[in-house]
Amino acid sequence: MALMDKYVSKLNTLDFKNMYNNDFLLTWEKSKNELEAVFTVAEALKELRVNNMSSKIFDSGLGISLFRDNSTRTRFSFASACNLLGLEVQDLDEGKSQVAHGETVRETANMISFMADVIGIRDDMYIGKGNAYMREVSAAVKEGNDEGVLEQRPTLVNLQCDIDHPTQCMADCLHIINELGGIENLKGKKVAMSWAYSPSYGKPLSVPQGVIGLLTRFGMDVVLAHPEGYEVMSDVEEIAIKNAAESGGSFTKTNSMEEAFKDADIVYPKSWAPFVAMEKRTDLYGKGDTAGINLLEKELLAQNAEHKDWECTEELMKTTKNGKALYLHCLPADISGVNCEVGEVAATVFDRYRKPLYAEASYKPYTIASMIFLSKVKNPQEVLSMLEKKNEQREIK
Amino acid sequence: MALMDKYVSKLNTLDFKNMYNNDFLLTWEKSKNELEAVFTVAEALKELRVNNMSSKIFDSGLGISLFRDNSTRTRFSFASACNLLGLEVQDLDEGKSQVAHGETVRETANMISFMADVIGIRDDMYIGKGNAYMREVSAAVKEGNDEGVLEQRPTLVNLQCDIDHPTQCMADCLHIINELGGIENLKGKKVAMSWAYSPSYGKPLSVPQGVIGLLTRFGMDVVLAHPEGYEVMSDVEEIAIKNAAESGGSFTKTNSMEEAFKDADIVYPKSWAPFVAMEKRTDLYGKGDTAGINLLEKELLAQNAEHKDWECTEELMKTTKNGKALYLHCLPADISGVNCEVGEVAATVFDRYRKPLYAEASYKPYTIASMIFLSKVKNPQEVLSMLEKKNEQREIK
Amino acid sequence: MALMDKYVSKLNTLDFKNMYNNDFLLTWEKSKNELEAVFTVAEALKELRVNNMSSKIFDSGLGISLFRDNSTRTRFSFASACNLLGLEVQDLDEGKSQVAHGETVRETANMISFMADVIGIRDDMYIGKGNAYMREVSAAVKEGNDEGVLEQRPTLVNLQCDIDHPTQCMADCLHIINELGGIENLKGKKVAMSWAYSPSYGKPLSVPQGVIGLLTRFGMDVVLAHPEGYEVMSDVEEIAIKNAAESGGSFTKTNSMEEAFKDADIVYPKSWAPFVAMEKRTDLYGKGDTAGINLLEKELLAQNAEHKDWECTEELMKTTKNGKALYLHCLPADISGVNCEVGEVAATVFDRYRKPLYAEASYKPYTIASMIFLSKVKNPQEVLSMLEKKNEQREIK
Repeated sequence: MALMDKYVSKLNTLDFKNMYNNDFLLTWEKSKNELEAVFTVAEALKELRVNNMSSKIFDSGLGISLFRDNSTRTRFSFASACNLLGLEVQDLDEGKSQVAHGETVRETANMISFMADVIGIRDDMYIGKGNAYMREVSAAVKEGNDEGVLEQRPTLVNLQCDIDHPTQCMADCLHIINELGGIENLKGKKVAMSWAYSPSYGKPLSVPQGVIGLLTRFGMDVVLAHPEGYEVMSDVEEIAIKNAAESGGSFTKTNSMEEAFKDADIVYPKSWAPFVAMEKRTDLYGKGDTAGINLLEKELLAQNAEHKDWECTEELMKTTKNGKALYLHCLPADISGVNCEVGEVAATVFDRYRKPLYAEASYKPYTIASMIFLSKVKNPQEVLSMLEKKNEQREIK
Repeated sequence: MALMDKYVSKLNTLDFKNMYNNDFLLTWEKSKNELEAVFTVAEALKELRVNNMSSKIFDSGLGISLFRDNSTRTRFSFASACNLLGLEVQDLDEGKSQVAHGETVRETANMISFMADVIGIRDDMYIGKGNAYMREVSAAVKEGNDEGVLEQRPTLVNLQCDIDHPTQCMADCLHIINELGGIENLKGKKVAMSWAYSPSYGKPLSVPQGVIGLLTRFGMDVVLAHPEGYEVMSDVEEIAIKNAAESGGSFTKTNSMEEAFKDADIVYPKSWAPFVAMEKRTDLYGKGDTAGINLLEKELLAQNAEHKDWECTEELMKTTKNGKALYLHCLPADISGVNCEVGEVAATVFDRYRKPLYAEASYKPYTIASMIFLSKVKNPQEVLSMLEKKNEQREIK
Repeated sequence: MALMDKYVSKLNTLDFKNMYNNDFLLTWEKSKNELEAVFTVAEALKELRVNNMSSKIFDSGLGISLFRDNSTRTRFSFASACNLLGLEVQDLDEGKSQVAHGETVRETANMISFMADVIGIRDDMYIGKGNAYMREVSAAVKEGNDEGVLEQRPTLVNLQCDIDHPTQCMADCLHIINELGGIENLKGKKVAMSWAYSPSYGKPLSVPQGVIGLLTRFGMDVVLAHPEGYEVMSDVEEIAIKNAAESGGSFTKTNSMEEAFKDADIVYPKSWAPFVAMEKRTDLYGKGDTAGINLLEKELLAQNAEHKDWECTEELMKTTKNGKALYLHCLPADISGVNCEVGEVAATVFDRYRKPLYAEASYKPYTIASMIFLSKVKNPQEVLSMLEKKNEQREIK
């Protein structure tokens, strides 16, 4: 039996034709079938690589990355995904380029895209801006393609915005699927997406929002826990409620980390900034009010410091299902006594889960590659089988 | 009939053997046949890509880009061109490297070129420096190749210097050829290369100089318009005069934008700094005279502000041939009311020509790729036909 | 006879099986057979390239470069080597990434390595840190691979550390081998590794240490010359002594440049900072003692200035074997009257040796590629022969 057979069979049961020549911006814009297609192709691409088979579908072409915030992991994940498929990464570094000189988004988007097959954007800093910017770029290059200026439509992958972090959360979910032994086993499992204390401030909301927006799709019982005042975007909470109703799961909120952790199958303790504070900061930046920004920072750090007890300790972990909940984090974590005095997680907990945490992260390049693959390949089943049959060695060993 | 046939037939009528293993530094150093070869191969490479055929001629190799000024478009155009042909781009960022530490140009040029097939340089800031630097680099790596230090001669592509901007102007010209329906239709057409007001200062002279130096080759009636005091390099004007005499066109100058636009078939309104001011600035930088530079900036902005009426308005456009001249710009433009209060062009004019402006820009990657191709491939006709026959898919769709 | 035959025959006589799936950190950790394997494969890869044959062994994959100090030559050498073998280079720029945010080395090393086949590190600034850091990264990714987090083990190449500069010194040695007509001709030749004056301070010790640690392996008579106070790391001197004893060569020290140069076959005059001063500087940096660092800089420059007579002059060159010793330098050199008033070498000497100096440098990309090749390919003889038989053109000319 061919290696690709099981992935092809699975794909044959799914409807994902709308992913072709399309963007991946928010998980809740995708059908469940489409999400499963992403997981399936990610696993298939991994299988090919493990078996030293090339999965290049591009002979040439560019993958453009546009990071508006520091990044190591996402940058390398995107570069790895592009490279795996045969695209060369070109960073659009806004410092070096003329973007800062007042060009319109539409123009720049087209000017860099003449040979771009995919554009990956990370823009998570300002509320109301990141996802909107991605849509602006997407519309610009789609129009460019429709008008014949671009010979192909560069599709977009959201590498983190103000609303969602789909490549992270899809990789998290693929990790859960593998840990639980199948997507069908997610149903009924309790997930604690919990705020945790961090001595730094202003961490993006995209992970908690992405997690509650995604895991509620699979019938899980998702609990969002945070101190009062650390609310996430209410629009996303509404999506989580709707998702839970549709999938037969649940979405609840609590101001108690203990309550969230109690009997949880999965815990995801992670710091974030209050949505309202981030909105305020966005306004202050808009006005160039440096004094206001500095004051806000002080206030937020003081607010954080009131919740140092929101730490994922061994004691808390003992209260989870059989004391053995799966611990998740998007990394890097603030580890108490390691890279900060008090942080999101106790050193012994983190250390015990180090290996699965690394495994969790390892799904990201494949998840991104899968999103690109599904937006570029019309018949993924055929191409996966062809890649296996072709059997070009990735590496001559 | 094969796709490549018409390009091969055209190339068979042209003498361009001197382009092999050679640089592309100034358009007026190239014969008309050679310029036509560049246009032809650019179109052929585009045809291959539109038909999803690989035009890789390199299995490995580096394309080195050396930018001494900010750049988005040219950077991505060069990267796209290299990628299309199979070269990997390596930026020589002078901040990060030891170039700034007093190394001789010859040494550095050789040290980075052991596996370099092409070097693209943008160095347009200082009068008398950019093009001279390119020739120094070219001589260094040619010598390195002759001496056996380099196994290949990395050929140079001028990505903009103090004198010419050949990749831009050749792309502009290819756009004109396509808009007019053939290179033979350029003869007798009136081109207005006009200064226009910009609230910023110190814009390079390479575009107006490149345009008058190139379009006079094809029998066009080229008018250079600018306020008094905004003269370009006189050497290039002399070249334009000589070209016009040879091609049966004309080259005239005026201090009236109206006169230039009157009945023009093509208009290219664009800001630039006076040549003498740029020369002065180069001296001041050489002396490290910061106060002098700041003073000069103030003077130049004040001088610009006297000419706010040099704007490409709807009224002016109406005076062109049938009110429908082709509007050109190298982008980004200063658009009145969009990215500045008053600028080079009225928003409605710019907007009406947005699509052709983007098309104009889209020729640049192919133009650069064509220049590289012609400097690397001994028998382009044979190789273009071979690429079509081979028919490797650029993208497995 | 096939091109690869002589390299294959040579490799058949050598035992280098431990290089497979292994790092290259210090030359003295490698057997003489292993060093010879590096030279042989470097020459074989060069032969393939000269004959326009592809030596790609990777269809996709990343080569990660991590530079903690400015670099042009080594950066481009690493990029060239990766490109030659089919790997795409991704720079881990610590400014842009989250490395600076307190992440542990282990985590970052794994997070960037999911699709990394090789990691090249340059970290030569602080005594006791660079090589140690490389070993930390190596252990982290080896563990990641053992644990199944990484599907391959990214092997490391030391691109310069506080102790050794193996890619430079191996390239230097390959140059000597070619100049002397064979590795067997190194025995009994006198090498002067000499300090030389430079108006800058704090130059790394890795070259002199690397040279005495490597050339003593081949029965050469290695003399280390420097003013009093410019001692190198004593551990490396002990290695040189041991090497010389084993190889039938010698390792001696002197405080006289004249004595070192007398009848030397090879001279390598180059500035470096005293080991003890570098140790002190490392401590000061650790304490963040800026005043101390500035004071140390002043002291070191003053100390250097006492030894302006340590210059490689024509007079000194005349005292070497037949007045014709081979002059080596890792470049860039401080050339008297060229890029400094008084420096390491007289302009006429440097100029006379420019061509061989460039040739010396040209071995570096092949040396690095060879190190990668030997760590990735289980049966190099088979693969080299296969690459020749396959005969894919590197460049379609």
